[in-house]
Amino acid sequence: MALIVHKYGGTSMGSTDRIKNVARRVAKWHDAGHRIVVVPSAMSGETNRLIGLAKEIQSQPDPRELDMIASTGEQVSVGLLAMALLAIGKQAVSYAGWQVAIKTDSAYTKARIQSIDDAKVNRDLDDGKIVIITGFQGVDDLGNIATLGRGGSDTSAVAIAAAMKADECLIFTDVDGVYTTDPRVVSEARRLKAITFEEMLELASLGSKVLQTRSVEFAGNYRVPTRVLSSLTDPMLDIEEEANSGTLISFEEDKHMEQAVISGIAFNRDEAKITVLGVPDRPGVAYHILGPVADANIEVDMIIQNQSVEGKTDFTFTVSRNDYQRAIDVLNGTREELGAASVTGDAKVSKISVVGVGMRSHVGVASQMFRTLSEEGINIMMISTSEIKISVLIDEKYMELAVRALHKAFELEKA
Amino acid sequence: MALIVHKYGGTSMGSTDRIKNVARRVAKWHDAGHRIVVVPSAMSGETNRLIGLAKEIQSQPDPRELDMIASTGEQVSVGLLAMALLAIGKQAVSYAGWQVAIKTDSAYTKARIQSIDDAKVNRDLDDGKIVIITGFQGVDDLGNIATLGRGGSDTSAVAIAAAMKADECLIFTDVDGVYTTDPRVVSEARRLKAITFEEMLELASLGSKVLQTRSVEFAGNYRVPTRVLSSLTDPMLDIEEEANSGTLISFEEDKHMEQAVISGIAFNRDEAKITVLGVPDRPGVAYHILGPVADANIEVDMIIQNQSVEGKTDFTFTVSRNDYQRAIDVLNGTREELGAASVTGDAKVSKISVVGVGMRSHVGVASQMFRTLSEEGINIMMISTSEIKISVLIDEKYMELAVRALHKAFELEKA
Repeated sequence: MALIVHKYGGTSMGSTDRIKNVARRVAKWHDAGHRIVVVPSAMSGETNRLIGLAKEIQSQPDPRELDMIASTGEQVSVGLLAMALLAIGKQAVSYAGWQVAIKTDSAYTKARIQSIDDAKVNRDLDDGKIVIITGFQGVDDLGNIATLGRGGSDTSAVAIAAAMKADECLIFTDVDGVYTTDPRVVSEARRLKAITFEEMLELASLGSKVLQTRSVEFAGNYRVPTRVLSSLTDPMLDIEEEANSGTLISFEEDKHMEQAVISGIAFNRDEAKITVLGVPDRPGVAYHILGPVADANIEVDMIIQNQSVEGKTDFTFTVSRNDYQRAIDVLNGTREELGAASVTGDAKVSKISVVGVGMRSHVGVASQMFRTLSEEGINIMMISTSEIKISVLIDEKYMELAVRALHKAFELEKA
Repeated sequence: MALIVHKYGGTSMGSTDRIKNVARRVAKWHDAGHRIVVVPSAMSGETNRLIGLAKEIQSQPDPRELDMIASTGEQVSVGLLAMALLAIGKQAVSYAGWQVAIKTDSAYTKARIQSIDDAKVNRDLDDGKIVIITGFQGVDDLGNIATLGRGGSDTSAVAIAAAMKADECLIFTDVDGVYTTDPRVVSEARRLKAITFEEMLELASLGSKVLQTRSVEFAGNYRVPTRVLSSLTDPMLDIEEEANSGTLISFEEDKHMEQAVISGIAFNRDEAKITVLGVPDRPGVAYHILGPVADANIEVDMIIQNQSVEGKTDFTFTVSRNDYQRAIDVLNGTREELGAASVTGDAKVSKISVVGVGMRSHVGVASQMFRTLSEEGINIMMISTSEIKISVLIDEKYMELAVRALHKAFELEKA
C-alpha cells in the first residue's frame, strides 16, 4: 500500500464530464489499495476569468486581494471532484490550502510554501478517504490566502508529496511525457522513460512547458519521485500499464537512467539580442547597463562582454522577445550616462540547448554540437554553458533545421 | 462617528461597473467619518452557476462539498470590492467568513451563526480601513466552510452588526423600501418610513421578498436597527438624504412608528389547498396525515381540522403551489392506511394577510377585513390569525380585487 499524490491540470478538470473521468481514474488507484491525495487545478479558463474581473477594477490589482479572488477557482475544483468521487461510492473530502494547513510566506501572487501540516490529511487517509487539496495556494501567518503564481498547482502537489513522504507524485497532464525534443519540430522525437531532476530543471526553464520550474526544484530538493503522464487516456486503463507510462523524474541517476550523454534538445524561439556598443570599460559597467533593465522587470538570460579594446567594450545580452522594445527604450534612456556609442539589437533570434547529465563525464559534446551546426552553415551568435547544458543563440530562420540536425547527430531517436 | 454595516445584494454587485458604484457609495459614508463594514453578496447569477456545476456532478450534491463551492462567489465579491475601494484611494481589506472568524454550526447549506469574533475587524477599523466581509458563510468547529442558505448575506450583515453593536445596518437592495402592499397591484401603495421587526417578520414570511426571514428574526432578537434602502440611486446622493431614505425596521415602536393600526397587506398568489375527507377522528390524526408530507420536504402553512361528525373529520391544509401535485401523490399513497374517504384539492387559491402591531390594541380589525371582502362578494375559504396578523385564503381570481379593497378600507394610502 503506497501513498500516491495525483495532480490534474486545468484541461483535465475543464468540464463536469472531464471531472467525472478524473474521479474514475482516482477511484481506480484507490481501489488498487493505495492511499490517494489529489491536487486539481482550477477548471481551464477560470483563473483567467477571475484575473480579468480583477483587472477591470484595478489595472494593477492589489496582490492580497487578487489572491483572495484567484484562489477560488481551485476551491470550486476540489469540491466538484469530491462530489464526483462521492457520486461513484468513494469516500472523499476536499480541503482548501488554509484548512490543511499549507503555510506560505506573505509574497502574495508568488508565495512560497513554508510548511504543510499533514495530521488532518493522514487521519482521513487512515479512515479510507480520498483527500483532495486545492493547488496553487496556502495561508500566511496572518491568516491571509496567498497563491503560488501560475502553474503553482504542480508545486503544491510536489510539496504535499514531499511533506507526506509520498511514494510517487503523478502529474497528469495533456502531454504523455517528456520528449527528447518537441515532436512538432522533429517527428522522430522520442518519449523519455526517465530523466533526472537536473535535466528536467534545464528543460523546464528552457521552455518545455510540461512542468513549472519551481515544482521541479522542489521535487529535486526533497527527492520526490515525480512522474509526468497523460490524463487523456481511458481512465480505466490497466493500472500497471499506467504506473509505468509517461516520464519518471528521478534522483536515482544510476538506477533509472538510460545512460545517454544527451537527454534532450530544448529551444526557445522568442528570444531577442541587444548589444550596447562602445561602452567605457570600467568596474561596474555590467551593473550600470543591466540595473535599469532589471528595474523595469525585464529578465535577462545570456550575457557576453567582449574583450576591451582601447578602454571600450561591447556588451551583449538576450531578453524575451516581448520585452525587446522596452529594453531598447530603457537603454536609449541611459545611453548618454553610460557613455556608450550606440544600442543595437536583433529580435529574430532563437536559443537552442542540448541537455544531459551524461555531459559531465563525456568530453566532446560541445565540439559535436558546434560541428553539426557548422556543417549546416548555421552561424552561432552567442554561447552559454552549464554543467549539464550547452546553449547557443542562432538566427531564428535556422531554428528547426538546427534542432533536427542536433537530434540526429546525438542519435536521440534511438532508445 | 458611528459604526455602520452596509449590505449589497447580487444585483448591486452584478458587474465590475456596478461594483465601482458600490465602492463610491461606501467611500462616501467613510468620508463622512463613519466606521464602515461591508457585506456584499456574490455577483448576480454566480451562486446559481456554481450550484449548477455541482448538480451536473451529483444530482443531490453533498452538503459540505456544496458549501465549499457555493461560498466562493462571495469570496470573489469581497476581493473585487476591496480593489475598487483601493483604486479610489481608500484603505480597505477583505475577509472570508473563516478569517474573521464567523463561527457556525455544521448544518451545511443551512447553517446558523453561533458567534463572531470582531477583534481583527475592530483593529482594522481603528486603522482607518473599510472592512469587507463575505456574506452567506462561516466556519464550523471542525474548520469546514458552512453556508447559511439562499439570501444568507442579509443574515450575515445583521449578525455582524449585532456582534459589533453597530449603530445601524443598511441593506442596500433593488427596491427602495417596504411598501404598504405591492405597488404593482395597488398603485396607491405607499413606502413605509418605519416598521417594527414583528411586522417585517410577518411581511417577510408572507412573500414580500425584501429581506430574508431569518435576518429579520436576528435583527429583532439582537435589536439591530436595520434599514432597507435603494442601491439604484446616484452613489453620490446627499448622505443625510440617503440616511433617512428607505424603510427603518426598528424595535422602538413608540418612537418611530406611524401609529397606524395596519402597516401593510401581504399576499401570496401561489398557494394550493388540500383536503382529506372522512378521516376517522382519533388521536394523532394530524400527525399521521402531515408526517409523510413533511418527510417529502413539503412545507405546510395554514391548517384546519373540522368539527368531527360521527367519528369522522375533514382535514384541510395549504402548501406552496409547486408542491401541490407531490402532496396529493403522497396522500393518495397513505389514504387507505389513514382510512380516509378521499383526497381533494384546489391549486388556484391565494392568501392575503393584513399585518400591523396596532392590531394588538385595536379590536375590530378582523371584522373590518371580513366585511370588506364580503362587500366585494369574495368568499373566505380558510382563516388563520396571529397577534399582529390575520390571513385568509380566497379564490386566486379575486386576489388583486381583495388587496385593493383592503388597502382602501384600512386607508393605507394615507401617511
